Amino acid sequence: MANRPLILVCNDDGITAPGIRNLISVVNQLGDVVVVAPDSPQSAMGHAITINGILRCDPIKIDDGPQREYSCSGTPVDCVKLAVNEILDRKPDLVVSGINHGSNSSINVLYSGTMSAAMEGCLEGIPSIGFSLCDFSWQANFEEALPFIKRICESVLEKGLNARTVLNVNIPQFKGEAYKGIMVCRQANGNWEEEFDRREDPRSRNYFWLTGKFVDYDKGDDTDEWALANNFISMVPMTSDLTAHHLIGTMKNWEL
Amino acid sequence: MANRPLILVCNDDGITAPGIRNLISVVNQLGDVVVVAPDSPQSAMGHAITINGILRCDPIKIDDGPQREYSCSGTPVDCVKLAVNEILDRKPDLVVSGINHGSNSSINVLYSGTMSAAMEGCLEGIPSIGFSLCDFSWQANFEEALPFIKRICESVLEKGLNARTVLNVNIPQFKGEAYKGIMVCRQANGNWEEEFDRREDPRSRNYFWLTGKFVDYDKGDDTDEWALANNFISMVPMTSDLTAHHLIGTMKNWEL
Repeated sequence: MANRPLILVCNDDGITAPGIRNLISVVNQLGDVVVVAPDSPQSAMGHAITINGILRCDPIKIDDGPQREYSCSGTPVDCVKLAVNEILDRKPDLVVSGINHGSNSSINVLYSGTMSAAMEGCLEGIPSIGFSLCDFSWQANFEEALPFIKRICESVLEKGLNARTVLNVNIPQFKGEAYKGIMVCRQANGNWEEEFDRREDPRSRNYFWLTGKFVDYDKGDDTDEWALANNFISMVPMTSDLTAHHLIGTMKNWEL
Repeated sequence: MANRPLILVCNDDGITAPGIRNLISVVNQLGDVVVVAPDSPQSAMGHAITINGILRCDPIKIDDGPQREYSCSGTPVDCVKLAVNEILDRKPDLVVSGINHGSNSSINVLYSGTMSAAMEGCLEGIPSIGFSLCDFSWQANFEEALPFIKRICESVLEKGLNARTVLNVNIPQFKGEAYKGIMVCRQANGNWEEEFDRREDPRSRNYFWLTGKFVDYDKGDDTDEWALANNFISMVPMTSDLTAHHLIGTMKNWEL
């Protein structure tokens, strides 16, 4: 690492979202900061990348902070790829993504542009962290979360992360009561139970809006959902190796 | 399971792609088939879903087969959600996605719309399989792969799959030599080394095209990349639990 660490910031809510502005304010205290973030909301884009269209990525000045910033037309993962391969002179020491407006706990990691950006940093071999606040409001209280975010970033800058590992940090909505601390946990076994709102357009054709509610099937007290429900900040180490290693032996017996 | 299994088919190359037409021809032999697939190419969409726009999903008739088909304006994951929650009268016994035109081995699973559709089936609690042929050509030879695909589908219909598990099946490009068989393996540790093609538009503004090449860092002979390079069909059991369980203990000692 150079004298001052180089920190890349991304998100999925767009470069002007309060969440990323708060995250920038934290990491400006820790190193030289470059922001490459989407020019428009990219929530629920998962690990999508732009292969059939062009990408724009232009410098932008949003506030008086010392960070360099670029606004990108692509997905969160596009932003990280562009940053690492085109914008930055050297590999960053840390990638942080967020602070997402809304939870990315449990199975939400799969849909999340914020977490996919962090995962992409991990794939590039850079210690990477995604941060999410369980509050969709643009006026959410990020303030109480910032000291914890700073502490986690400092620890990762100091200790690094294992290869193929990324951290998924979720912070409960602030309800006036101080957070109890940071809990290392596993991804809860939950999922979305979807409903679609079926409507008719002015030309009498059907269309659908996706809706639904999250259901936690997991009764464990070692999950991210448990942590959040109990006013802890959850921190899940995640891997980019999706292999179900424990099933390889069983499946070899299938005699295909 | 009812007398005849109900099989849902999806893909990411679009409902008219040769890959999905070949897959439909296989599963028509095994059960009652419903196809819900994108109306346009959705490659590299990962686990993206449509939350800020509407979805169309309309019946369509493409060939003379017995399957019911629906063309959907959304992503591959949208298709599976719509199928399970709106189109089908009961939960299907099997979800198959593909046959993708191009490899989804190693880290490509994260970017793949085909594999994300299969993962979504898994999240819905349905045994799910993604199939990919390592050949981008629209005129690719799918024929030699079909008996293996049939055998895998039959096995999964018979034996089921563990909860939170999805199969990632990749088939080598056919080069005239018979496939050696099916190998159960793990996801290779590989990644894309990106380059961006930087160009100037007619108004002198920069834009970028994503490009790059896949690099396999993994020297193991138990990986999907090894299997494919040796003319085996690779089959990787994958999990929707991304937790790096082995790191939870270590991280608890960080004393955050």
